[in-house]
Amino acid sequence: MPARLKIIVAYDGADFAGWQSQLRGDAIQDRIEDALQRICGSHVRVHGAGRTDAGVHALAQCAHCDLPDRRLTPERWRSALNGLLPAQIRVMRAAYVPSSFHARFSAIGKIYRYRIWNGAVLPPFEAGRAWHVSAEINFEAVSSAAEMFVGRHDFAAFAANRGKRAETTVRTINSAIVRRRGVLLTLEFDGEGFLYKMARLMAGAIVRVGLGKETAQEIRDRFAPPARSATGPRFAAPADGLFLVRVRY
Amino acid sequence: MPARLKIIVAYDGADFAGWQSQLRGDAIQDRIEDALQRICGSHVRVHGAGRTDAGVHALAQCAHCDLPDRRLTPERWRSALNGLLPAQIRVMRAAYVPSSFHARFSAIGKIYRYRIWNGAVLPPFEAGRAWHVSAEINFEAVSSAAEMFVGRHDFAAFAANRGKRAETTVRTINSAIVRRRGVLLTLEFDGEGFLYKMARLMAGAIVRVGLGKETAQEIRDRFAPPARSATGPRFAAPADGLFLVRVRY
Repeated sequence: MPARLKIIVAYDGADFAGWQSQLRGDAIQDRIEDALQRICGSHVRVHGAGRTDAGVHALAQCAHCDLPDRRLTPERWRSALNGLLPAQIRVMRAAYVPSSFHARFSAIGKIYRYRIWNGAVLPPFEAGRAWHVSAEINFEAVSSAAEMFVGRHDFAAFAANRGKRAETTVRTINSAIVRRRGVLLTLEFDGEGFLYKMARLMAGAIVRVGLGKETAQEIRDRFAPPARSATGPRFAAPADGLFLVRVRY
Repeated sequence: MPARLKIIVAYDGADFAGWQSQLRGDAIQDRIEDALQRICGSHVRVHGAGRTDAGVHALAQCAHCDLPDRRLTPERWRSALNGLLPAQIRVMRAAYVPSSFHARFSAIGKIYRYRIWNGAVLPPFEAGRAWHVSAEINFEAVSSAAEMFVGRHDFAAFAANRGKRAETTVRTINSAIVRRRGVLLTLEFDGEGFLYKMARLMAGAIVRVGLGKETAQEIRDRFAPPARSATGPRFAAPADGLFLVRVRY
């Protein structure tokens, strides 16, 4: 009897082509499907809550898959998968769930965290895990810029590939929390959904305001209808600093 | 006029053959000397406070070198070196010091930290930076085992390559502090000096006591004269979890 398994996956995205399966097979989803195939002897499709780009990390991506049977306990599935996966991808938790649960369609929100190292030198242990900005960032400016993203807006100006799809670009950001601990600045976005590169485009805009390169008013103007053209990927903060923290159900 | 520069170096040791210069040129010292040569046009020898093994990390290794002149400010030396070094090696601070300062001979002590991840799954961000021990470690047993290393002892039983050199194996450990935060266990040793692999052999012994594989008395017996034979490198905790935290002057 088939069984639906939910897995919570953490990964260091540096060495992978993002979450979503790629022809070259170097995506995180590919690695998990390869491991499942080795255990099950047949291909098992893995459904993630959402894509993350190449280089983006996850503390708790959520995914599900339909297994041919319940031959193993969830803990055994976890250790079997971790035994085959590289150390950069770990199944942190696993549980059987009803077939009504769908990692993507059941999700009601996601939390992304963006980390910025605002010091002279990026310590080696932060390499690939934070955006290094050595020029001084104004914390108050960053905090008020972040506040502007909260609420229901047309985020067309904060999405890459705008217009490629017919779907709406209206999204709701529930909260945008800015924290500073020493030279580490973190931006945490809790939202119902995120457009392509939206978290990195928001982080990029917020940091530009913090550096005095853009005004808060210029950001506010981009929300005004008619929605302006996309900011362009060159304004996106680098993938290194972005973490999918949690998927809410 | 020659000038002595002191540098504080942090490194992720995973990809290097340790601190000390190697024929293959893949040691951290080699990388820094290569960078200095590219800036100065001549070979500049770098003197570290002490060696660290392949895979061992440093938050603040200390080193000095004699530069041909003071053409740059210490901050400029720092950024010039960081511009040439890989992201896994960073000069965190630099300062000119009197020629009486010697990174190795002026040192009066070192602090090493050993990190143990005592949970079911090692998160990807801890890979290479902690020893993963999934069996439950008894915190009280670990704390009392660590206490036994404090003081002036003959550490012959906690050194690799014992007998290769004629020098004394008596060392003083000022403190051994055990901390637990969630599933992360840290052992911090403050000592006047450490023998080859001594920190990892102490960490290995302490964890064995915490797992009930060895008794505190068995450790105590190894200090009793005549000093017993070395524990053997197979009992050393892996390099991944060890960090040189600070050199004291």
